[in-house]
Amino acid sequence: MRLAELSERSGVSTATIKYYLREGLLAPGRQINATTAEYDEEHLRRLKLIRAMIQVGRVPVATVKEVLGHVDDDSLPRAMRLGAAVWALPQVPEPAEDDEFVQGARVAMEGLLKALGWSNAQAMTSVSPSFRSLVVAAAALRRLGYEWSPETLVPYARLMHQVAELDMEFMESHVSEAEKAEVAVLGVVLVEPMLQALHRLAQEEESTRRYGFE
Amino acid sequence: MRLAELSERSGVSTATIKYYLREGLLAPGRQINATTAEYDEEHLRRLKLIRAMIQVGRVPVATVKEVLGHVDDDSLPRAMRLGAAVWALPQVPEPAEDDEFVQGARVAMEGLLKALGWSNAQAMTSVSPSFRSLVVAAAALRRLGYEWSPETLVPYARLMHQVAELDMEFMESHVSEAEKAEVAVLGVVLVEPMLQALHRLAQEEESTRRYGFE
Repeated sequence: MRLAELSERSGVSTATIKYYLREGLLAPGRQINATTAEYDEEHLRRLKLIRAMIQVGRVPVATVKEVLGHVDDDSLPRAMRLGAAVWALPQVPEPAEDDEFVQGARVAMEGLLKALGWSNAQAMTSVSPSFRSLVVAAAALRRLGYEWSPETLVPYARLMHQVAELDMEFMESHVSEAEKAEVAVLGVVLVEPMLQALHRLAQEEESTRRYGFE
Repeated sequence: MRLAELSERSGVSTATIKYYLREGLLAPGRQINATTAEYDEEHLRRLKLIRAMIQVGRVPVATVKEVLGHVDDDSLPRAMRLGAAVWALPQVPEPAEDDEFVQGARVAMEGLLKALGWSNAQAMTSVSPSFRSLVVAAAALRRLGYEWSPETLVPYARLMHQVAELDMEFMESHVSEAEKAEVAVLGVVLVEPMLQALHRLAQEEESTRRYGFE
C-alpha cells in the first residue's frame, strides 16, 4: 500500500508517519521509484504498536525506539528479548531515599518471593525494575502504617501469576518471535490499564454485593 | 502531640502541614492556647493518606479534598461512600471520539459483564468511570487489531474478582467506617501499583520458567 493508504488505515497522519520514518521507529517502505514507497501489513501493525505506546502508554519517542530495538533483536533468546523490551519501558522512579521503610520492604518482598517459590525472580532482584516497583509500593504502604506481610501478599501474587499464565497463552497463540515480543510490550502498555479497570469494576461489584445500598 | 512532633512522625514539613490545614485537607487540632494546638493519631493517619495520594498517586490537592469529603461523609451508605471516594480520584480521559472502535468495545464489554453475571456493574455502566476505563482500554486493543472477545476476558475478570475479594477482606479487618473508606482509596492509590508490579514480576517468572535462556 502507499503512504496515503497506510495513513488512512492506521488513523495516523502522513506527516507523523514521515516523522516516525525519519526517527527510525518505522522501517522504510520498499522503494518503487524516486518519490514512491510501498508499505505492507507489518508496517501497519508496527505503526499501531507505536501509537499505543505513545498515546496510551505515554512512552517518549526515544524510549519507543529503544523498546522496538529489543523487540526486533533476533540475537537474544526469547525470555531475554521479552524482558529487555518490557524493562526498557518507563518504570517507577527509584525510591527517593534508602530509608528504613525501603530497607524493611526489600527484606519483606524477598521473603515473599521465597514463600512463593519464584526462584527465577529471586535470582533477578538486584536488576529487575518490577521487583524495584514492588519494593517502592510496599515501602509506601509501610510508611502509612500498613504492614503487608509476605503472608498477606501470597494470595495476591498467586492470582497475578494466573493472570501472567493467561498472558503467555495469549502470546503463544501469536506466530512470529517479533510478534511475541510485541505482544509482551502490549501486555504492559494496554493490558495493565485493562486489568486495572477490571480490578476497579470488580471492587464495585463486590462492594455492592456485600453492602448493597444499606 | 504538637505540630513539631506530628511533622517528625509523618515526615511532612511543618510548612506543608500548615498548608494542608489552611486548605482544609486536615482537620484543625484541639486548640490549647492562642498559639498551640494538639494533634492526635487520627491526624497522623490522615496526613499519611494525603501524602500517599499526592506523592504516589499524583492526585491534585483539590481532588484530594474532594476524595476526603466523601471518605468523611457519614450520611452515605457504605457502598456509595466507597464508590464516591474512588470515583473522585483521577480517571482515564474520555475517549477522544466515539468512533467505531469505541462503540464496538462498549458492546463487547457489556457482553462481558453479562457473561460474568455482574449485575450491579451492568446497572452502573452509564455512570461508572471504571467501566469507561475498560471500554477505552478495549477500544485501544481493537484499534490495534487485537479483538479481545468477552470470552477471552472472562478468566481475567474472574481472577480480578478474586483480587477484589481479598481487598474487601483486608478492608473489613479495619474498624471504623471512615477507615474503611480510607482503605478503599488506598486500594486504588497504593494497591494498584503493587498489583502491577506483581503482574510484571509474575510475567518475568513465568516467561523464564517457560523459555529459560534458550
